[in-house]
Amino acid sequence: MKFDELLMIPGPVQVHSRIINAMARPTIGHRTPDFSEIMQRCTEGLRELFGTDGDVYIISGSGTAGMEAAISTFSKVKKITCIDNGKFGDRLCRIASKYTEVDAIRFEWGKSIELEKIERSLEGGSEAVAFVHNETSTGILNPAREIARLAKKYSALVIMDGITSVGGDEVKMDEWEIDVAIVGSQKCLGIPPGLAAVAVTEKAWEFYNDKAPFYLDLNAYRKKLKDWQTPYTPAVPLFFALDEAIKMIYEEGLENRISRHRRFSKAVREWAITAGLELFPELNEYSNYSNTVTAIKLPAEISDKELRGTLKEEYGITISGGQEHLKGKIFRIGTMGNIGKREVLSTLAAVEDVLMRKGAAKPALNVAIEILSG
Amino acid sequence: MKFDELLMIPGPVQVHSRIINAMARPTIGHRTPDFSEIMQRCTEGLRELFGTDGDVYIISGSGTAGMEAAISTFSKVKKITCIDNGKFGDRLCRIASKYTEVDAIRFEWGKSIELEKIERSLEGGSEAVAFVHNETSTGILNPAREIARLAKKYSALVIMDGITSVGGDEVKMDEWEIDVAIVGSQKCLGIPPGLAAVAVTEKAWEFYNDKAPFYLDLNAYRKKLKDWQTPYTPAVPLFFALDEAIKMIYEEGLENRISRHRRFSKAVREWAITAGLELFPELNEYSNYSNTVTAIKLPAEISDKELRGTLKEEYGITISGGQEHLKGKIFRIGTMGNIGKREVLSTLAAVEDVLMRKGAAKPALNVAIEILSG
Repeated sequence: MKFDELLMIPGPVQVHSRIINAMARPTIGHRTPDFSEIMQRCTEGLRELFGTDGDVYIISGSGTAGMEAAISTFSKVKKITCIDNGKFGDRLCRIASKYTEVDAIRFEWGKSIELEKIERSLEGGSEAVAFVHNETSTGILNPAREIARLAKKYSALVIMDGITSVGGDEVKMDEWEIDVAIVGSQKCLGIPPGLAAVAVTEKAWEFYNDKAPFYLDLNAYRKKLKDWQTPYTPAVPLFFALDEAIKMIYEEGLENRISRHRRFSKAVREWAITAGLELFPELNEYSNYSNTVTAIKLPAEISDKELRGTLKEEYGITISGGQEHLKGKIFRIGTMGNIGKREVLSTLAAVEDVLMRKGAAKPALNVAIEILSG
Repeated sequence: MKFDELLMIPGPVQVHSRIINAMARPTIGHRTPDFSEIMQRCTEGLRELFGTDGDVYIISGSGTAGMEAAISTFSKVKKITCIDNGKFGDRLCRIASKYTEVDAIRFEWGKSIELEKIERSLEGGSEAVAFVHNETSTGILNPAREIARLAKKYSALVIMDGITSVGGDEVKMDEWEIDVAIVGSQKCLGIPPGLAAVAVTEKAWEFYNDKAPFYLDLNAYRKKLKDWQTPYTPAVPLFFALDEAIKMIYEEGLENRISRHRRFSKAVREWAITAGLELFPELNEYSNYSNTVTAIKLPAEISDKELRGTLKEEYGITISGGQEHLKGKIFRIGTMGNIGKREVLSTLAAVEDVLMRKGAAKPALNVAIEILSG
């Protein structure tokens, strides 16, 4: 028998039964008051998660579609500074290079960014900064507030990929002076993949460039939002899911939700350290460990295939390996979305079991239990 | 009490319970063999619906995303001829103008296209032709085979928007020498909106232009297809739906399915004529009525709001009005996807009832019943 599986990766995340059931209803016409009601609730709910009074545009597509919509729509800049300290930072650079000149500020994956280098780029005439808030490929939380503060000193536009932080960690766009931010559906929001949302402050429109792709030009979304509609046919079942997910987020309370995410990732980190493992990120004074995914160095005693293969086969649990050149060097445990202590603890117990068989870890579950119980 | 609704519009279509239920399962990781199996079945199933041995790339996004992916990826042409005899032809022109010079050949919406004008455009140095096969905004089936034949005389690339024909009407890409074609999920395939697929023959790659948007560059999809993967996180629940939908299509048999769609649209047309109504399209020797949607002139005795409002309120049936300048001038009944005689007949009976109250139609259901029963 094949048991139900548990997804503990940094997205797509485990989907709560309430959200699965929300999708399981007949499609409705998208040019109807029924759809507009859903659209309005989703938009207003997301606005609060982003911490903005600005508009939020929901795109049917992956997080990458959201990144490209944000960058291409607001690309009326001579040069953009793109910060790369992981796979998604690298993706930002590659997308931006299609639309304007890019000053790519690269740091070794897993290393923290140095604000001094960003400032030098801004001094060099860059008019915008794009960065990833929570870099899932390395488990680092980049210093959003500090980057924005620096950018504003030079009146630069600030675009933040919040794909894996919004809805799970603290994001305060308006307070931090972030002009544009992006979230993906299959991360902290807890719904399946297929939607991205871009939050946009009025300020950002000064950088509007009509050279964006037709499908991703946010001006079309802005026009339609007045009637709580989308310019192109939306992925209706995912809007049903988002509607339910937002309801669940406010039932839990955003503050509680953020505390829960922080508690869960802390439990994973402290467990790892006590078990004798090493966390992958190298922090500096500005950066932090991610509160939604933990990246841990793979011990020499075990291969990636042995660890993740056994977990999947024996326990039905999926965790992530490293991406690109980090393959076989790290493993990553996502703790995003609508999961409880049960899912976190069973994952750590299973990982510990598999590692201990190889003599690659010491028992450390008590530490996790204590933190999880808050 | 609010009854379950019936969607009889040219997409999104009514979704069969089997497909709704297929979506209602936990999300799976998209970088897994489980997902690749689904991806392979979907791709191979679609290939047959397109009538091609070429690749099929599945994009998470609406049909418009598919159109832009097709046009932008294969835009290494000095000039493209875009045929516009309806809303979606117009959209093709607007998308193409972002990537190359467009020779827009426009016909009044509802009128048939004239091949002579296409030929003159090709003589004028156009290197590609893009057109809509089944123009849902007007209910016309454009002559795909003849357009392609003409284009090939000038060695031009042929891009066909088959969003509302593939899976419901005859499409034979390879035989007709169509190089690139697009389908949308929420039309004849019978699943909810949120996916588009683009079929591409080897020949098309001679026109590859790396200026496509990052998210829509089909070369990234091509590279990942070798491992039955997508380059960016796919809308997993919609892949579950597509997998089930393709299974259903082959259970019915593609030939039977096409015959059914033709029978259903013929029933609507003959009913309309017998009821004293007038079909909207003006055909010439090359064009045909659409086999998936029927556009009918709105009788003077009734307003669009009265007709569609009463249908929705009393019967829970949604049909479409006209788009753009055709608002209030026509109404449209979609007969796409996994519906039976029951849905078609109940729709016609309801429309007839509402029209007859205004003295705007004569009884004609018997004609429909006869045709539906084949």
